[in-house]
Amino acid sequence: MEELVYSAPEPVLKEVVYERKANYYETDQMSIIHHSNYIRWFEEARLYFMDEAGLPYKQMEDDGILIPVLSVSAEYKVSVKYDQKVLIYVWLSKFNGIRMQCGYRVVDKETGTLCATGESQHCFVDRNFKPVSLKKSYPGYYERIKAVTGERSGFDGK
Amino acid sequence: MEELVYSAPEPVLKEVVYERKANYYETDQMSIIHHSNYIRWFEEARLYFMDEAGLPYKQMEDDGILIPVLSVSAEYKVSVKYDQKVLIYVWLSKFNGIRMQCGYRVVDKETGTLCATGESQHCFVDRNFKPVSLKKSYPGYYERIKAVTGERSGFDGK
Amino acid sequence: MEELVYSAPEPVLKEVVYERKANYYETDQMSIIHHSNYIRWFEEARLYFMDEAGLPYKQMEDDGILIPVLSVSAEYKVSVKYDQKVLIYVWLSKFNGIRMQCGYRVVDKETGTLCATGESQHCFVDRNFKPVSLKKSYPGYYERIKAVTGERSGFDGK
Amino acid sequence: MEELVYSAPEPVLKEVVYERKANYYETDQMSIIHHSNYIRWFEEARLYFMDEAGLPYKQMEDDGILIPVLSVSAEYKVSVKYDQKVLIYVWLSKFNGIRMQCGYRVVDKETGTLCATGESQHCFVDRNFKPVSLKKSYPGYYERIKAVTGERSGFDGK
Repeated sequence: MEELVYSAPEPVLKEVVYERKANYYETDQMSIIHHSNYIRWFEEARLYFMDEAGLPYKQMEDDGILIPVLSVSAEYKVSVKYDQKVLIYVWLSKFNGIRMQCGYRVVDKETGTLCATGESQHCFVDRNFKPVSLKKSYPGYYERIKAVTGERSGFDGK
Repeated sequence: MEELVYSAPEPVLKEVVYERKANYYETDQMSIIHHSNYIRWFEEARLYFMDEAGLPYKQMEDDGILIPVLSVSAEYKVSVKYDQKVLIYVWLSKFNGIRMQCGYRVVDKETGTLCATGESQHCFVDRNFKPVSLKKSYPGYYERIKAVTGERSGFDGK
Repeated sequence: MEELVYSAPEPVLKEVVYERKANYYETDQMSIIHHSNYIRWFEEARLYFMDEAGLPYKQMEDDGILIPVLSVSAEYKVSVKYDQKVLIYVWLSKFNGIRMQCGYRVVDKETGTLCATGESQHCFVDRNFKPVSLKKSYPGYYERIKAVTGERSGFDGK
Repeated sequence: MEELVYSAPEPVLKEVVYERKANYYETDQMSIIHHSNYIRWFEEARLYFMDEAGLPYKQMEDDGILIPVLSVSAEYKVSVKYDQKVLIYVWLSKFNGIRMQCGYRVVDKETGTLCATGESQHCFVDRNFKPVSLKKSYPGYYERIKAVTGERSGFDGK
């Protein structure tokens, strides 16, 4: 692992910031962004994170790895409105080769106000939705994901 | 054709009515259903039509036929609001074995007010998006679609 | 409370079942329903529950009460696919006049397979997003919601 | 008019290019971007155009002008896929103070391939959806929109 960290072509990422503007069609009649859209924003941020971390999801799918969502949660603190610019902080909080977990914070770009937080868990499967061991079948991806997980590297406190 | 009409297992359909309630998450901050959702409603109505007409799209995809959209249009007359019940009238307006065209009318269920009209054109392709001649490769589907097209059976006035 | 229970025009509801068919436009390129749509299905089911429970949300909004989402979570067990019919069981799991919590289970209609579970928390605000005490300002709604919460009536185990 | 053109603080815009990446949640099980999303992309591009043209729609709504959609159409030429970068060319094709019309072209950023074209018509209303004459009630916005319409300034060939 440590060797890999030092030989990584890009610096190891712990957290990535994804910028996003709230679209009109994402509002609802409360004049705020509908809460379901944050789940989509989390996905945008997560896939951006993976691109930035040298783990482009498009390539992974082409290689036969799908990463479906096992669970997702969001807490809404302050409503985001149409035309508002937000920064979405995203990081890989857990990874054990079988599952991974991502964390999210949505922050107003101008004021820094925390608008929402979230979390998602994922597994790795092949095109037939059979579980895949990254360590065994895709060691390159395995090491790369381990590298970007930072110190937060295990489920169950491991 | 005529023989087929008389031997059709179900009565020939010319127009089908699909009922739908407007969802909260489909509203926008104008407090009306966002216009993009009508395009989705048209799809719901079209696939319902196909089910009713003995042309279940799920089965067609399983058989290797995809029916992508070539064009779509909508005219918005009266806004639909959250919780409103609408009837979507849908019919197959043109079909020539290579392409088909559907028509739509969205009507308030209670008052009968015409809320929107629409049209969509489609072609038939295989899983690699190569055009498929239904007449040659899937004569059963071809005859079935011809049967539900009614008198409105051709492109270019044919 | 008890008086109200016995005078309720409809029988007290503990759980409502909402039926739903998965739409084509809700799929993603994994050929499953995109996970964000379950959050929307929860909303559909919740608003259906409220209608059935004599708490029509449209009326509540017209009366000046908005019920935004404080948090939402979903666990995905078995993927739902296009054209699949699901039953969404929805119930009010907590309510204290300031907040309420709903629970959800998404079940395949044909087989009974549990596909997903979920939870959402909500508060009550006026049109300016100022918190509203239902008990004080809208006692009718307060009693009605208490009635449908069943034995699961409090936050913090109360 | 001409005076205004020359005194405009920014150069007069005829066409604006809006860049967009196709999101995973916008795909469907044909592994292409679902056609309904292009209608949303048109809106994103249109509102970007208005911002760039000194007609920020957020400000207009705050000033009491809503611009609902009267009609929309799209022609799909080549499917857009997940992760693909597109350029959306958008321009104001018609404007007469009562209505306006926008045109759209969606082009693959890398290859320049034309993926889709579209058009939308709009009117101007107040918060109660009563028609508004921009010329009379909001002459500043009227002149500004006229300026960006270029030579394509009228309905009915005017």
